[in-house]
Amino acid sequence: MDSDRLETQLTFILEVEQLKQVFRQTLLIGDRRPENDAEHSWHLSMMAVLLVEHASAEIDLLKVLKMLLIHDVVEIDAGDTFAYDEVANQDKEDREQMAADRLFGLLSPDQAKVMRALWDEFERRQSAEARYAAALDRLQPLLLNYHTEGTAWRRHGVKKAQVVARNEHIGEGAPALWDYARKLIDQAVERGYLTE
Amino acid sequence: MDSDRLETQLTFILEVEQLKQVFRQTLLIGDRRPENDAEHSWHLSMMAVLLVEHASAEIDLLKVLKMLLIHDVVEIDAGDTFAYDEVANQDKEDREQMAADRLFGLLSPDQAKVMRALWDEFERRQSAEARYAAALDRLQPLLLNYHTEGTAWRRHGVKKAQVVARNEHIGEGAPALWDYARKLIDQAVERGYLTE
Repeated sequence: MDSDRLETQLTFILEVEQLKQVFRQTLLIGDRRPENDAEHSWHLSMMAVLLVEHASAEIDLLKVLKMLLIHDVVEIDAGDTFAYDEVANQDKEDREQMAADRLFGLLSPDQAKVMRALWDEFERRQSAEARYAAALDRLQPLLLNYHTEGTAWRRHGVKKAQVVARNEHIGEGAPALWDYARKLIDQAVERGYLTE
Repeated sequence: MDSDRLETQLTFILEVEQLKQVFRQTLLIGDRRPENDAEHSWHLSMMAVLLVEHASAEIDLLKVLKMLLIHDVVEIDAGDTFAYDEVANQDKEDREQMAADRLFGLLSPDQAKVMRALWDEFERRQSAEARYAAALDRLQPLLLNYHTEGTAWRRHGVKKAQVVARNEHIGEGAPALWDYARKLIDQAVERGYLTE
């Protein structure tokens, strides 16, 4: 065993442990506290396994899971940027690129390269895997928002058109999931969780 | 699209969301609150990707990830049983089997069968994948306990011999990780995190 290599791997593993303390706007269905990024990443990964038949193309599920497990680690440095916060979204990319440099840079060059490439691919939605992963990353908060009576939407005065615009690329990765999501958005308006 | 099938999948996905509210004895390194099972499952899955070269055999990483993502869902009904609580461990298996029946039973028969088989395989440590997954499931709390000065161990008066006995099967799934873990256990005793 190369013990330095294992130490390097564990340094990264202990660093990304902080993802459990990066909180999102979305609330848990049960006790209505904000969800954190580690829980979110687990939930998406579970969804990826169960919903794979709905992906728009034949995909490499292992690659999807690797992407989902690391897709939010940059938020350890860059923080969670609320989807509908236009000001914060202006410099989001710069903040996240710097975070990716630092965090993936903790790994040995071979592993850093692999993980960074997965993260870049996810961000750019350039492959069927990335589009399916991104579809889940949109559907999951939609589900939680709906099942918490739109609390996070109402808190920020989010409108239906914003939710549709933000989420319609679900259809690129998983058309059946977008059909479902559209119905959920309509029901959210009917129930007053979301304004027209 | 078979919309009933998607509804069934989403019922399970929303049910297992509760894993975010099942708390463990292990504390987070950062703010020292108890870790929950969803975060733990994410962390193990991340570890599985990065440490796969240390597995004792050639393994199917996708299978390992599927196992790790679902390995604790039974605790939604059965609760987390502290590793060193001998009384609670007596009926742990019965409680978890009942939970597996109910939870996986929410899925359609084909998916229920696949997920239950993965869980059974993990529990029995019958394959190289299950042994590697189980090794990570032991190493991760060991890392967190060590890096929180053994708070959970000291709280329960856990002794070195118990930690060694509980964790030595790490060596079956990943020998290099067990070498590392043994050194960590010795250092934990030296530093007073664990009693001899």
